Amino acid sequence: MSFEGAAQQLSEAGREFYGRGWVLGTSGNFSALISREPLDICITASGNEKGKLAETHFLKVNQNAEVIEGKGKPSAETLLHLTLYYLKPEANSILHTHSVWGTILSDKFYANGAIEIEGYEMLKGLNGVRTHEHREVLPIIENSQDYVALAHIIENVIRENPNAHGIYLRRHGLYTWGNSIAEAKRHIEIFEFLFEVLGRQRKA
Amino acid sequence: MSFEGAAQQLSEAGREFYGRGWVLGTSGNFSALISREPLDICITASGNEKGKLAETHFLKVNQNAEVIEGKGKPSAETLLHLTLYYLKPEANSILHTHSVWGTILSDKFYANGAIEIEGYEMLKGLNGVRTHEHREVLPIIENSQDYVALAHIIENVIRENPNAHGIYLRRHGLYTWGNSIAEAKRHIEIFEFLFEVLGRQRKA
Amino acid sequence: MSFEGAAQQLSEAGREFYGRGWVLGTSGNFSALISREPLDICITASGNEKGKLAETHFLKVNQNAEVIEGKGKPSAETLLHLTLYYLKPEANSILHTHSVWGTILSDKFYANGAIEIEGYEMLKGLNGVRTHEHREVLPIIENSQDYVALAHIIENVIRENPNAHGIYLRRHGLYTWGNSIAEAKRHIEIFEFLFEVLGRQRKA
Amino acid sequence: MSFEGAAQQLSEAGREFYGRGWVLGTSGNFSALISREPLDICITASGNEKGKLAETHFLKVNQNAEVIEGKGKPSAETLLHLTLYYLKPEANSILHTHSVWGTILSDKFYANGAIEIEGYEMLKGLNGVRTHEHREVLPIIENSQDYVALAHIIENVIRENPNAHGIYLRRHGLYTWGNSIAEAKRHIEIFEFLFEVLGRQRKA
Repeated sequence: MSFEGAAQQLSEAGREFYGRGWVLGTSGNFSALISREPLDICITASGNEKGKLAETHFLKVNQNAEVIEGKGKPSAETLLHLTLYYLKPEANSILHTHSVWGTILSDKFYANGAIEIEGYEMLKGLNGVRTHEHREVLPIIENSQDYVALAHIIENVIRENPNAHGIYLRRHGLYTWGNSIAEAKRHIEIFEFLFEVLGRQRKA
Repeated sequence: MSFEGAAQQLSEAGREFYGRGWVLGTSGNFSALISREPLDICITASGNEKGKLAETHFLKVNQNAEVIEGKGKPSAETLLHLTLYYLKPEANSILHTHSVWGTILSDKFYANGAIEIEGYEMLKGLNGVRTHEHREVLPIIENSQDYVALAHIIENVIRENPNAHGIYLRRHGLYTWGNSIAEAKRHIEIFEFLFEVLGRQRKA
Repeated sequence: MSFEGAAQQLSEAGREFYGRGWVLGTSGNFSALISREPLDICITASGNEKGKLAETHFLKVNQNAEVIEGKGKPSAETLLHLTLYYLKPEANSILHTHSVWGTILSDKFYANGAIEIEGYEMLKGLNGVRTHEHREVLPIIENSQDYVALAHIIENVIRENPNAHGIYLRRHGLYTWGNSIAEAKRHIEIFEFLFEVLGRQRKA
Repeated sequence: MSFEGAAQQLSEAGREFYGRGWVLGTSGNFSALISREPLDICITASGNEKGKLAETHFLKVNQNAEVIEGKGKPSAETLLHLTLYYLKPEANSILHTHSVWGTILSDKFYANGAIEIEGYEMLKGLNGVRTHEHREVLPIIENSQDYVALAHIIENVIRENPNAHGIYLRRHGLYTWGNSIAEAKRHIEIFEFLFEVLGRQRKA
């Protein structure tokens, strides 16, 4: 993918997510793979509104988290993106959102270690899922400001949950990925829909 | 109706429904009747975002579910659309959405066999309903990935509930129809509004 | 007000309310006063989508509910608008919406005869209200398809509640008015906001 | 900041907030600092819809709350803005919104004296906050129509809570500020997101 094309598609995803209230403030961050060997990614710079992104709000970053194109500070969470690209060879895009229902569920199910979702047709929107009888186990990881430690924890959790389509940082937000920006965006929508169903159902 | 006109109106309905969160991911599918004898329909191809449909995302399909115009794979649920057109001679459009409140209600009322709605002025938006005292019985059918079996079950349920304005696949979504795309769209809005009322009321 | 100007402003209010889900399906109706002597009003014709109104979707109707300009059938509720203009000399516009929260509250508080709202700053958006300590008593009237009988009931209720800024038809919708379309629209927003606060608070 | 630039940016924030239902009716008011010595601010005139603001809906007001540019009546709450600019030398913009969740929380937690929020990643969107472990204490002040008395109460509360990023008038709305309009807008989004999380969580 070209840097320009990635920035344009990620900006559009940002406008959609902002409209739905999933990246309020300057929360969330988005990336796409530019090349795998060497690992170069296009990622949102830190601190911008996600509903009004333009190409100038993106950086090209290498596998050492160094900025090789663009102006601005890479997000502190760049390391988590790089870790996920390393662990998930099929990932060409990684999207991270903060939603109300996700935040609530990540807290309620923290003691269980995961948000488990089973029996919904909407699950078929996740890559490779063929039936609503699928059981998606979305691991919840304790939030931290130590991103190096967090990257190691994520590495372990991903290895232990090879079938998960995402991870959730407790009271923080969802990370999911896809083989394209469109697929990663679809995964965000699927998870957010199901979070809302689970959140509202617990009260009903 | 012309294929082009149907595709344009269905695309617009898709944008509206996507905005309201009723066809997130690539969920939902929409069709309109092109001719009844022989039975030809215009239907969304599989796997596209419903908020950004254009004519190229639609297929013309015949009564054997064969693509006779357009590129792409017909939705696995095309068979359900064809079955409904066969059973409902007044139907010129069939719309299918996945909403949070519908999903929740279809689960809660599954044991009852139907979502029953009575006493709301909004019911008058359903074709032929003249008073809020109308009792709408919306049958709930267990979800399945075996679409041939599902089509037979739908056939029985529709014959047993000749007055129903739609059916609900459990934890999956709503199917409703109308004598025009505008009427089918109105039926979606009526049901979704009433699902939200019932869903929120159960908690209040 | 000119018919064209009224139609344009009411169409814009319709787009706004539709976006918020307060006039789904073809629910709701909107009017404005063209002249008081003789009483002529501009009102939505029956059966149109309220998110896409244009001048052709409006009728000029006289005090006998006869169409004197425009094509289409006047809403069955035209009689209620005319009754309200007759009873409320300050009203230059009447707006009617169907919302989820209003529907729920009108049912819950039906036995009380009114939705009572007190102590909210937002009440100051209602004409003539100077303090949040104001107590708004919004009468709830049983819904009916007999509009002549309903008009008489409304007449009595309005006379008994001269300070009310609106009335609610049970499980149907809100009627409110204003000395301009802008004020009537503001009243809708104020009531809908407060309905949501009350509805969510009852559950909290 | 120029008056024109401030009016344009505040208008845009108004459109965003109106879309989200945080400034319905004609609620809310927005300001930005034009100069600190002497203290001149650009502030919304009273009584306008916040979703359709243009430069003509703004006034330049001096430290005595006198209009020195523009037409219209300054909001009764202008005094509160001036008090906050006086107390918070870092504030270059002050935004005030009325939301459903904030209204509910301000009532529920009134007896506690504050809405306390701790442990959410989203808190890092508040100026100077470096970790989700931050505890934000948002003081709740009883609502009043006596703005002179209210200004004195706000002065005391701000002096007692030097680290607070905002204050809440009970059953009325949020005041927050920022070193730019963008930062104040971000603070509104952060607080509103967290209000919704807390409000929904209390019910779950």
